[in-house]
This record gives sequence, structure tokens and C-alpha cells, in this order.
Amino acid sequence: MLGNFTYCNPTKLYFGKDALDGLNEELPKYGKNVLLVYGGGSIKKNGIYDKVVAILKANGKEIFEDAGVMPNPTVDKLNEGIERARAAKADLILAVGGGSVCDYAKAVSVSVNCNDDPWDKYFIRFEEPTCYIIPVGCVLTMVGTGSEMNGGSVITNHGQKLKIGHVFGEEVFPKFSVLNPEFTFTLPKYQMVSGIYDIMSHILEQYFSGTDDSTSDYISEGLLRSLIHSANIAVENPRDYEARSNIMWTATWALNTLVAKGKTTDWMVHMLGQSVGAHTDATHGMTLAAVSMPYYRYILPYGTAKFARFAVNVWGVNPEGKTQSQIAYEGLEVMEAWMKKIGLVMNITELGATEDMLDGMVKSTRIMDGGYKILSEADVRDILKASY
Amino acid sequence: MLGNFTYCNPTKLYFGKDALDGLNEELPKYGKNVLLVYGGGSIKKNGIYDKVVAILKANGKEIFEDAGVMPNPTVDKLNEGIERARAAKADLILAVGGGSVCDYAKAVSVSVNCNDDPWDKYFIRFEEPTCYIIPVGCVLTMVGTGSEMNGGSVITNHGQKLKIGHVFGEEVFPKFSVLNPEFTFTLPKYQMVSGIYDIMSHILEQYFSGTDDSTSDYISEGLLRSLIHSANIAVENPRDYEARSNIMWTATWALNTLVAKGKTTDWMVHMLGQSVGAHTDATHGMTLAAVSMPYYRYILPYGTAKFARFAVNVWGVNPEGKTQSQIAYEGLEVMEAWMKKIGLVMNITELGATEDMLDGMVKSTRIMDGGYKILSEADVRDILKASY
Repeated sequence: MLGNFTYCNPTKLYFGKDALDGLNEELPKYGKNVLLVYGGGSIKKNGIYDKVVAILKANGKEIFEDAGVMPNPTVDKLNEGIERARAAKADLILAVGGGSVCDYAKAVSVSVNCNDDPWDKYFIRFEEPTCYIIPVGCVLTMVGTGSEMNGGSVITNHGQKLKIGHVFGEEVFPKFSVLNPEFTFTLPKYQMVSGIYDIMSHILEQYFSGTDDSTSDYISEGLLRSLIHSANIAVENPRDYEARSNIMWTATWALNTLVAKGKTTDWMVHMLGQSVGAHTDATHGMTLAAVSMPYYRYILPYGTAKFARFAVNVWGVNPEGKTQSQIAYEGLEVMEAWMKKIGLVMNITELGATEDMLDGMVKSTRIMDGGYKILSEADVRDILKASY
Repeated sequence: MLGNFTYCNPTKLYFGKDALDGLNEELPKYGKNVLLVYGGGSIKKNGIYDKVVAILKANGKEIFEDAGVMPNPTVDKLNEGIERARAAKADLILAVGGGSVCDYAKAVSVSVNCNDDPWDKYFIRFEEPTCYIIPVGCVLTMVGTGSEMNGGSVITNHGQKLKIGHVFGEEVFPKFSVLNPEFTFTLPKYQMVSGIYDIMSHILEQYFSGTDDSTSDYISEGLLRSLIHSANIAVENPRDYEARSNIMWTATWALNTLVAKGKTTDWMVHMLGQSVGAHTDATHGMTLAAVSMPYYRYILPYGTAKFARFAVNVWGVNPEGKTQSQIAYEGLEVMEAWMKKIGLVMNITELGATEDMLDGMVKSTRIMDGGYKILSEADVRDILKASY
């Protein structure tokens, strides 16, 4: 770990089958008005909505609703949510849902008391909040983004064909998050494996960068091995509590700043995937899956040693009698086979990308500079073309 | 991860060569009176004392000194420190040193405003603080205990021949800690490798428990692999910044509650080692090293599967054609050889334990119930005898 860094993660987590009881400890810390933010209403079908509302009422809260947060929350919805939070004079924003709902709640939280246009300020100019931030709490019902313990917030602007994430500082992290693995049981398999790959991608974005020696990479390898092991079980039996709980916990630690400490990071898979998402509105994790293999095969020659380490330490490739490059490529083959096996979408065509979108996707792909190769626009085009 | 748990770790860490600058961010948050706690004066020789004092003065603080904290802080010293903190009307206790100094600072922090006898209240009756706790900050100069980001505090009572640790809740964690790997460069090798084994033992105490499937164990394996890798480098070249920084970071994460989440834990090596320490005043990590092999060989038959996993995943034992028990024992052999190689003390005789101490050590060994075998007094005796 060669650089200077700070670490602070103040989010309090309540984990397990009884995690929702944590609300009774947290709610008394905040004022009366709670903006209850959720998505398309699946929490009404599975009973989580009723449980949360009962606890809010028992704690004497006035509930203001902000429903209909979509999987890729839009800037239009954000502007609506800001108005709702203002009208409610919200003391607390309680997000009940997956990463999108939690991301959205954070974007509202930094915008309610902000006079600037939030899209321009936070997602185009990447400025930090200077206003009072409404506290956010989260009850997680979908696993993947890590939004429950970080400052990340991704918003999509369909008009501008842009999907952009801002990673806010610890003052924007949820004050608390409720993680009950059982709440994820009813999720369709497509969403579950998409979330699993989102987790894997988060770890890989931080792992595939740098040639230095860092404890963070060893932690990442541990998380990846646990994720693969538990994903294999969960795909066969989605109601395996132990596997779902390990996946949930791995998701949190995959993107709560820990495994990036002391390291450079990549994030090009997310930039490519978000560009695909902005044009297709496809499920986030699937966009990452669909571009990953073309991207990693493209950059492998620039980071062969790390890809070889990945092959051996994460995928159990036997290195005997092979060149580093052979080991590295074999690791990606094993990974690709596993991705197919658990049911990930392996090309962007299946996600709705058409040939005419290519130019737009190339243009809206933000180039990051921490990976093993800084991509040119031509590189981005090659990778996206190979992803069809 | 089968149980319910909460996670919250509010300590802010400043890490790297410039970490001490973090004091300028933290000190303005506290009142004028700072109790500066340190050990035998090595921080005066290596210049850290002067740097800290300069920053304190630049921040307008009044400095009250509490020097002479010994490697195993005693209850007599604790009582002296409480009086000093009271006389200083300390607004902040700044611990500059290793785990002992930080442990001691925490014990003072919970005792200054407490009317009960702190030894009886916290270390015999294991009660929680009910008084105002003086905030603690830490500038770490020795690595191992993890005290910089947890609620642990170990105090020794020579009169009662007891060395007891209390793990306090998050309200007792240091508010901030400064981790500069360079501050550990001048430490004698004996202390360095003792700290390295303290880290390893912390991880193993949490790893060798339970038969369930837990992400925490995968994280532990990653931390162990990083530790072994960096320890091998640091033993050859103690001024290798990268290795020392990885060891420092691993120490923090080995015992800041993360790798125990969702798990049962053991802690019998610490109970045995602390009993040896209470009788010999030997260096903490060495007491752990000296009892580990006899303990692990004793309990291996009750947790063979985990010891076999440990052998393969941490020590790279090739499992082919071997029984699980053979793999497990081979892992301990590889570990033992590594322990000898880096210079750990492998028996308690060398630490000053004599035959006549055995009865006392057996009696003062606290029995924990989370390991693969709940020990009887006869078991403790057998293990300690095998440790001579």
C-alpha cells in the first residue's frame, strides 16, 4: 500500500433474519417526517412494505411516500423526488429496495437543500454537496450495488443519453442499513445473477489495477472466492439462506471503499456498461457482464501478471508448465464458462443494443485512467463492437 | 453467515507517510487539554514525540504527560493514569505508541468519570461503561494488536497474577488513528515478529471456529496470505515500506470486528498466552506463538476439515492423494517451520516460564467455549506442559 489515504465508514449495519428490528433503534434518532422511497411495488407483494410501515407508525413517524423509482433512476424522477422531499419537510429518507432506490435516495438527500440543478452540479460537474444533507437509511431488498454502505449514486439522463455515477463522501453514506438475506429470496433469477455479477465486477474493477503489492488485492481474492462459492449454491437453490447471506455481505464489502484502499482502480467495465445502459436501459449487472470478456481480453496483455495471479488464486487454474500469458487467458476462459453457467447475458445484442447505437455508446463512454491500458476512442469502439 | 449481527466501526484512519497531518484535521474537534500517553520513551529517540508535540502546540493544545506505560500495562499504572487525566481535566487522550499504550488509553478513558474500581468493574465483572468516556486518539508506532480500531483493552494485575482483556463497544473505539508505516521501521526485530504473530493469531482465533460457511473466513484467508507474504519480506528488510504498510493494514483489519462477523470465535490461544504473560511478563505475541502449536495440534482432531482447508488455502499444501487429517497436520508443519524461520519463540521456557508456574498458569487460564473443543482444566494443563 504505497499511497496516503484515509478510511472512515460510519454506516451502521443490521444484518440477519431479525435485521429489521434495527429500525427501532435508529428511527428515534430522527425527526417525525419520513420520506419512504421505493420502486415498482414488489415490496407490497412480499410484505416488506407492511412491516416497514408498521415499524414507522409504532415509532410515531409521519410517512410521506415516493414510489416508482425505476431500476435506472432518471433525472426526471430525481427532480420529482426532490419536490416530494421538500413538501414533506423530510427529516429522514428511508429507501426500501435495491441499489437503484438507495442511489436515488442519496441523490435526493444532497439536492433537497441545494439551489443548483442537481444533474449539472453532481453528475456533470462532479461537485460536492455544500448544503444540509437529509439523512438516509436503507432497507435492502436486492443485492449488488453496495449502495447500502457507500456514497455511490448513479443517475440516468435519457435526454442526454448519459448514465453517470457520483461517488460522494462519507457524509452522504446511509446512516444505517438493514440487511436481511431473506428479503432477497423472492427476486427473479435474472435479477439475482445480475446482482452477483455486479458484485464481482466491483471487486474486479478495484483488483485489476496497479502492479504494486497490496493487502487489498488479497482481501479481494477472498471475497471473490466466497462469491463464486456462494453463487454456485444460490443459483441451484435461491432460498439457501447461508449462500444468500454470504452474497449479501460480500456485496457490501465489495464496494464500501475497503478493497480500493492504497490502490489505483480501473472502472472501465462500469463506464462501458453504463454507456450500454444509457442507450438500452438494460439491467445494470447484465451490461457489465456483456462487456467484461471483450474488455478483459483486450487489456490482458497490458496486465498479464495480475491476470495470471487472478487465474490461479481465484479460479484455481493450475499454473504448472504454462506461460504467464497462457495461465492468464485460461483464467478468463474459466471465468467465462462460469458466467455462462450461472446465466449471465454475454453480449449486448441480447440487451437490446443495435448497430446504430454504436457511435452514441462510444461517445458516451467515459475514459478512466487507472486500468492496465488507457483506452482510446478506437479501443472503446473495438471493445463495444466485440460485445455485440 | 447464519446469525444476526450489527456492524459499525466509526474510527477514522489516516494511513501513509503523511498520516500525521491527520492530527491537524482531528485536534480542532476537541477541547484544549490533551493527555499525551506514551511508553518508555522510544518516541523521543525516533523523533515522533517532537513531531506530535509540535502539532499539538500549533493547534493551541495544553499538553499533560502520562509517560511510562509498560508493554503489559498494569492496574497500578492504570490507577495512576486515571488520576493524571482527572488532574488534567483531559478533553482528549492521545496515545502515541503500540497496542499497550492504546489499550491503556482506552482503559483510562472509561475510568476517569467512573466511581467504581475500574479493575473490578471492567476486567473482573466485565461491565460496560456508564459514565462519560473521554475521547481517545492514537498515533501507532508498533503493529499487532489492532487496538487502533477496536474496543479492546488488556490490563495486567500482577498481585492477582491475571492479565485480562475487555472488548468494549464502539463508543470506546479510538475516534481516530494515525498509521504511518515508517513509524514502525525502528522497532527491534523481536518486537516486529512478535507483532506479526499477534496479527496472525487474531485472525486464527476467529477463523478456527464453526463449521458453517462464512465470507468472513474467506476474508481471513486473504489477510493471512498477505500477512505471510509481507512478513517474509519485512523479516529480510524491515525498511521495506510496502511490506510494512501491508502488515500495518492487515493488523488493523485482523481485529476490528470484521472477520468475526456472522461467526463463532475461539480465543483460547489468547487465553493461554495471557496466562503465560501474567506469570512471566513476556512479550504478548511471543506468548501466543509459544502456545499455538501445542494448542492447535491438540484441537485439530475436533476441527480437521477447517485445518485441512487452512493448509490448502493459506499454506499452499497440495492435497492430492492425502487424507483430510494428513493435509491438516501438514498445514501445521508448514506453519511451524515458517514461525521458526521468522524468529518466533516456540516454547514458554524461553519466555521465562518455570515448572513451578504451571499450576498458577492453569488456574488463571480462562476457558472460552467457541473453539473446536471446550477445554477442561486437564486439557489446559496438557497444552501448557507441551508448551515448555
